[in-house]
Amino acid sequence: MKSKMWGGRFSKKTNPLVEEFTRSIQFDKKLAEYDCIGSLAHIDILKKAGLLTPGEHKKLQSGLKGILSSIKKGSFKVNDSFEDIHSYIQSLLEKKSGKAALKLHTCRSRNDQVLFDTKLYSLKNISVSLNIFSGLIEKLNSVAKANAAVIMPGYTHLQHAMPVRLYDYLGAYAQMFSRDVKRLSNASDNIKLTMGSGAIAGTCIDYSKYSVTSVYPCAICAPANSIDTVSDRDFVIEILSALATTGMHLSRLAEDMILWATKEFDFIDIDDAFCTGSSLMPQKKNPDVLELIRGNTGKLYGNLMSVMVMMKGLPLSYNRDMQLDKEPLFDSFDIIQKELMIVTELFSNIKFKNENMEKGLQNESLYATDIADYLVQKGTAFKDAHAIIGKLIAYKLKTNKEIKNMFNAELNSFHPALNKKVVKEIIDPKASVMSKRSIKRK
Amino acid sequence: MKSKMWGGRFSKKTNPLVEEFTRSIQFDKKLAEYDCIGSLAHIDILKKAGLLTPGEHKKLQSGLKGILSSIKKGSFKVNDSFEDIHSYIQSLLEKKSGKAALKLHTCRSRNDQVLFDTKLYSLKNISVSLNIFSGLIEKLNSVAKANAAVIMPGYTHLQHAMPVRLYDYLGAYAQMFSRDVKRLSNASDNIKLTMGSGAIAGTCIDYSKYSVTSVYPCAICAPANSIDTVSDRDFVIEILSALATTGMHLSRLAEDMILWATKEFDFIDIDDAFCTGSSLMPQKKNPDVLELIRGNTGKLYGNLMSVMVMMKGLPLSYNRDMQLDKEPLFDSFDIIQKELMIVTELFSNIKFKNENMEKGLQNESLYATDIADYLVQKGTAFKDAHAIIGKLIAYKLKTNKEIKNMFNAELNSFHPALNKKVVKEIIDPKASVMSKRSIKRK
Amino acid sequence: MKSKMWGGRFSKKTNPLVEEFTRSIQFDKKLAEYDCIGSLAHIDILKKAGLLTPGEHKKLQSGLKGILSSIKKGSFKVNDSFEDIHSYIQSLLEKKSGKAALKLHTCRSRNDQVLFDTKLYSLKNISVSLNIFSGLIEKLNSVAKANAAVIMPGYTHLQHAMPVRLYDYLGAYAQMFSRDVKRLSNASDNIKLTMGSGAIAGTCIDYSKYSVTSVYPCAICAPANSIDTVSDRDFVIEILSALATTGMHLSRLAEDMILWATKEFDFIDIDDAFCTGSSLMPQKKNPDVLELIRGNTGKLYGNLMSVMVMMKGLPLSYNRDMQLDKEPLFDSFDIIQKELMIVTELFSNIKFKNENMEKGLQNESLYATDIADYLVQKGTAFKDAHAIIGKLIAYKLKTNKEIKNMFNAELNSFHPALNKKVVKEIIDPKASVMSKRSIKRK
Amino acid sequence: MKSKMWGGRFSKKTNPLVEEFTRSIQFDKKLAEYDCIGSLAHIDILKKAGLLTPGEHKKLQSGLKGILSSIKKGSFKVNDSFEDIHSYIQSLLEKKSGKAALKLHTCRSRNDQVLFDTKLYSLKNISVSLNIFSGLIEKLNSVAKANAAVIMPGYTHLQHAMPVRLYDYLGAYAQMFSRDVKRLSNASDNIKLTMGSGAIAGTCIDYSKYSVTSVYPCAICAPANSIDTVSDRDFVIEILSALATTGMHLSRLAEDMILWATKEFDFIDIDDAFCTGSSLMPQKKNPDVLELIRGNTGKLYGNLMSVMVMMKGLPLSYNRDMQLDKEPLFDSFDIIQKELMIVTELFSNIKFKNENMEKGLQNESLYATDIADYLVQKGTAFKDAHAIIGKLIAYKLKTNKEIKNMFNAELNSFHPALNKKVVKEIIDPKASVMSKRSIKRK
Repeated sequence: MKSKMWGGRFSKKTNPLVEEFTRSIQFDKKLAEYDCIGSLAHIDILKKAGLLTPGEHKKLQSGLKGILSSIKKGSFKVNDSFEDIHSYIQSLLEKKSGKAALKLHTCRSRNDQVLFDTKLYSLKNISVSLNIFSGLIEKLNSVAKANAAVIMPGYTHLQHAMPVRLYDYLGAYAQMFSRDVKRLSNASDNIKLTMGSGAIAGTCIDYSKYSVTSVYPCAICAPANSIDTVSDRDFVIEILSALATTGMHLSRLAEDMILWATKEFDFIDIDDAFCTGSSLMPQKKNPDVLELIRGNTGKLYGNLMSVMVMMKGLPLSYNRDMQLDKEPLFDSFDIIQKELMIVTELFSNIKFKNENMEKGLQNESLYATDIADYLVQKGTAFKDAHAIIGKLIAYKLKTNKEIKNMFNAELNSFHPALNKKVVKEIIDPKASVMSKRSIKRK
Repeated sequence: MKSKMWGGRFSKKTNPLVEEFTRSIQFDKKLAEYDCIGSLAHIDILKKAGLLTPGEHKKLQSGLKGILSSIKKGSFKVNDSFEDIHSYIQSLLEKKSGKAALKLHTCRSRNDQVLFDTKLYSLKNISVSLNIFSGLIEKLNSVAKANAAVIMPGYTHLQHAMPVRLYDYLGAYAQMFSRDVKRLSNASDNIKLTMGSGAIAGTCIDYSKYSVTSVYPCAICAPANSIDTVSDRDFVIEILSALATTGMHLSRLAEDMILWATKEFDFIDIDDAFCTGSSLMPQKKNPDVLELIRGNTGKLYGNLMSVMVMMKGLPLSYNRDMQLDKEPLFDSFDIIQKELMIVTELFSNIKFKNENMEKGLQNESLYATDIADYLVQKGTAFKDAHAIIGKLIAYKLKTNKEIKNMFNAELNSFHPALNKKVVKEIIDPKASVMSKRSIKRK
Repeated sequence: MKSKMWGGRFSKKTNPLVEEFTRSIQFDKKLAEYDCIGSLAHIDILKKAGLLTPGEHKKLQSGLKGILSSIKKGSFKVNDSFEDIHSYIQSLLEKKSGKAALKLHTCRSRNDQVLFDTKLYSLKNISVSLNIFSGLIEKLNSVAKANAAVIMPGYTHLQHAMPVRLYDYLGAYAQMFSRDVKRLSNASDNIKLTMGSGAIAGTCIDYSKYSVTSVYPCAICAPANSIDTVSDRDFVIEILSALATTGMHLSRLAEDMILWATKEFDFIDIDDAFCTGSSLMPQKKNPDVLELIRGNTGKLYGNLMSVMVMMKGLPLSYNRDMQLDKEPLFDSFDIIQKELMIVTELFSNIKFKNENMEKGLQNESLYATDIADYLVQKGTAFKDAHAIIGKLIAYKLKTNKEIKNMFNAELNSFHPALNKKVVKEIIDPKASVMSKRSIKRK
Repeated sequence: MKSKMWGGRFSKKTNPLVEEFTRSIQFDKKLAEYDCIGSLAHIDILKKAGLLTPGEHKKLQSGLKGILSSIKKGSFKVNDSFEDIHSYIQSLLEKKSGKAALKLHTCRSRNDQVLFDTKLYSLKNISVSLNIFSGLIEKLNSVAKANAAVIMPGYTHLQHAMPVRLYDYLGAYAQMFSRDVKRLSNASDNIKLTMGSGAIAGTCIDYSKYSVTSVYPCAICAPANSIDTVSDRDFVIEILSALATTGMHLSRLAEDMILWATKEFDFIDIDDAFCTGSSLMPQKKNPDVLELIRGNTGKLYGNLMSVMVMMKGLPLSYNRDMQLDKEPLFDSFDIIQKELMIVTELFSNIKFKNENMEKGLQNESLYATDIADYLVQKGTAFKDAHAIIGKLIAYKLKTNKEIKNMFNAELNSFHPALNKKVVKEIIDPKASVMSKRSIKRK
């Protein structure tokens, strides 16, 4: 392992198994950008506190900006033999900025530094995710509008319940994702971007020096309590929980689309570009993408559980266990961002088979509640109306007759207000959908 | 099982195993109060929609208020042979309000009703929890103030790090709980108290009729999308996730207090009233309460996982699986409320053994960073200072000498700025704590 | 709280909140039977060790047998104000057996006692579960045999894959449950029924005295290591993991049956006695039981997670956290036993709609692999055959033609070995199923 | 993406996002070795079934052996642009073995192939893990023997309970790991290495042809039920559950060692080579390795949860979700193998500070149970003895006296059998340890 940020008091070299086991650079390289931004703020603070001369500050700033720019250009190469990204950047800076670099870690602990980086990474990735969410919600809304006239069977318990508009079915997903947006925004608001906790007790720089610098749209400030701050991973858990909930929503959407793509439902046709085949069965066109989305719910839940378990029962304050927050966090953001983008494209390429959806609407059971509602309007108590229509349905199933084809006498025997004309008007998808007035039509 | 709210179309009695398996009254009885409040709102809506006469409305209102009052007085007895609390209240109402009761379920599905009840229950219990949190935070602050002068070793990796104030140690917990308060408040704000989703498609009552009635401090309104609304359990997951995080915080507090109560740390004495003994070992005084608090983290995480798994991959919209949201929700609120109350009382009865805490401060290693900081002030680059003090510590360990007792010559050999006078001033708990200026002193 | 098994050294009464929080009798009453059996063994050991006179032993034995018999008869009433079932039984015994009862806890810690009880409870409930599994597997096999001639579409990715026998579909579940039986049997074999760990260090009774008594079919012995034994909950985790896997299997079975009961698949009719209705929609007949079975997967996973999290990071040896193993264990056994029984009855009352299953077999894509296999027999490399039939399917979809109705010229253009006679023979459910010879036909 | 194993029927190219999302080669490359072994067995079967000529078989065998040997030599390079390792190996084989390679996938589905590979990988890695376990258990036993004379305070509730031997403390861990060995062995025995399931329905090769070939020590055979076999991931869950339990054991060991390494306990000194330092605090020597081991419990639990959630509610039979079993499986094996190796080395480098452990033994409370046992031998009922000694301890605490220093009159006042000589004999670590005879001394 290359030069470490500690070691003076140690009389032996680290065991090679331990070096490998404790190394984090293979995943924390994702923080490189945020680490430079954080260090740029930190050197401003050091300068204000009189701990860097203007000359040193300039050298460090120029060095850090150089590294940052190579990251943004994609030319940044990481040497995986370092312990972590922070010591690697430190070593680069020593080459670029010379002796001034030895002052970079003045009044700063690595724990506080990593925490800052992870928070900045999170803020950035929430922001990216919210953009992708917007795109998906827009797409859902535009597909909904394009299919505003389509009526289909609504399901509860996966049984036909009542006719609904495809517009509202798709709107249901949009509403789910809107809640996700809200939750991620809450999580973003709850992140406090602090510096100055030191290892646990704070630093010898006055708190007022910490509150000027700003990065991204976020202001940095000194922490109110440093003991808690260095050992707080609530923001990771809050994000992972929000992302897991999004994953759950996506698993429901995937489940619906997988069902709709079956031979039996046959409500949609997914574009070839979004399906895969079988190495054995030449006819197969499988909704693999949707299945992987459904399956990734496991990883998203697992990532959440991973960090929650890791934090359980840890004494104050920082413990090395907390380093293990990063892989789950990175992985969950990665999964959700990819999935949202794929679903957005998928909905640009779905063909709804309206005629098959409409076939389902011939099922007269879908209108049972409408008939009961009609009896209620005619003065029957709802509980009585429910029982009456229950019996009508039982009769229909036993005799295998369509309600529409029953004689007036038959219908009358259930309730005097029922007759052929009435049931014909009620058993109509559009009429059913129009009669639902509790949802504001858009 | 007693009279059900459905059954007209069924030709056979429910299998007894199934009756028992699907029955929920043994736990949903907790919703009785909220169910009455919901029904009181619902009958107002029905009246406005012309679906109840003023006379019917009055009878129902009086019946529901009677039941509500018996619940509040504690005289409400539940008959566990009913399917659920809703059918039980319906049956009571039929006795109290006569035929009008048969109209109670007009334009309302049980799913929508249960959802309303669960949301109202949640709002209420968040509010109760927030009060208990306030009490605990206040208690922590007052104990902190009462011990403002106590300095103790601060720990990272459970190793001595730097001297900190007990005040700040306790403040760390208060800050954790403040985040919990924020998260629960967010969860509360995110709950939309709706009526009018029907089973899936909405109802035939105009949406405008739904937006008047108010219960608790919350206004009811019609849903924007009924398909999503009846199958949304995000609020349960959001609450369970927040409560699980609180449980994690409590597990850390418990772990610390269990450590502090050991013979080896011996930092606190927990009152006899908060400990239990052993049936075999007569001398034992065990911090069982703290252990159970730590252990309950398992249940809180399990409850969260339970609902998340239950929701995974469910097609739209409502499925009976969702009934299983209630036991975990009730259980987690119950655990957290009890634990917060107990911890509040526990902190009224803890005795801090300052002398033992202070004994730890003699460990000179705690001041290593302070000596390095001194060298930084004298112009040494931090990285060099770190290495120098690392060697000083190694020397101290090898020679088994106190730094304070080293000769000037010895100290000088590490850095010319070091001498007996300097180190004596630095190796001082108060001086160390006072030098940390990044945290605003309260 | 009633008389405790400890307290001599305590100067204060337990705080009432703490009493309630630490009390376990509300759930550990389930252990009453096993506690008596354990104590009967313990007094035999005490007698052999000379720590009970024959007279004392007789009194205690008679007292314990009386309590055991009242438990088995169902006349045992528990007083919930005691701390736990052990102190309650102790108090009963003091009334029944007089002064001898004060010797019951000689050389025994409550932790060791509870552990024994929980292990015995587990052995018993595994045995009960295995019986119920047998019944279900038998039922699946007999339903399979009764439908041996039924052929249906086999699904992968929920898309039509190849024709399979319903017999084998049902056999798939039977095979899953057989693995569950194996796993629970392993768990049972791995339980060591020990006594003599004391609180942590063992007892002053010679280990040889512990190895005679036998209860159930299991022999008791002294532990090899008492420190581990008193703090081992592996057996709980192993059982919960096995039960969670069974729950997963049941969730898959439930998902299939819910799909098969949809209007769209319409493969089965579930008996009215196993369905429930809707309070709003009179026509509804919902597979609630199957949905609850699917949903309970959440609880089963949650219970497993609960105990695993509880055990994480506990120092040796016993900690009170471990008391929290019981509710999840009891709950998971209860859920699985009920579900297996209900599924067994459900399969006695399912009607398979063969004609609908067979309708699916007309989908010619199901035979694509069979045609490719035919080309392989005629000497074509499989990869080439796969590509050829892939193109045939694409052609079929584009032209919307049945393969059976294609002209010889068309078929020939894909491969010279293809013609009307050949494809007609291949596109046949029975022929397809009969050609699969890798599975031994039973 | 490079040449796929499917695609004939598709009219469009796969969407690039989808290609990346469904690609698995970045992790399933770990299966390369097992894939070659499986294919070697498969071509033997094809030859026996007359589907490969001896010449083709020879070419394929030589090609596969070449690839296998490059894997074992470490010269195998993977091209990550392929969909998965199977299509990559197929493409290599086409170069090496020519046209014969086009027959490799005759009568074999990729699902069945992957399943075989994963099972073989699992068998191999269980075997490797069991070896590492053996090494650790041996190490624990040898360290225990080397410290056989050391007596230390035994803890329950982290409070001093009774004197125990360090030998037995270390033996407790060895016993935990022995159970892990048993569980992994069970998991290994429960894996059935099958071929011949095809995609779902089996293949046209007779089942008898499948039962000859053997790889590793395991025999291959045809499956009893192919529908279940291709969609069974029980073995993954069983392994992940066993590994998670091992992780839990390691977290307890880590917790103990972290505690023992504190300034306050100071029972051990961990070698410098197994500790790391702080970038800020020059004096720090942190047990990071142990903390990471404790923290990884989160990942191990998360991996288990990940696969369990993924499998929940999947309809039969294979679904693409199941591809997501591999990363958690690989990760958990990797974590556990590394941790066991590190812990083994760590115990070669721990120094036990006997004098500090023995200091704890002066705490007279540790002998309270021994004094009570003495009274029992003198005829006092245990419950009375417990109460008497409880009072003696309360008196000791109140008066702050050592029991050994109490006057005969004082001791007598608690029980006539107590006197200075008696308590002096009892309050002795060796005497206490020797009096525990329920554990067979090794």
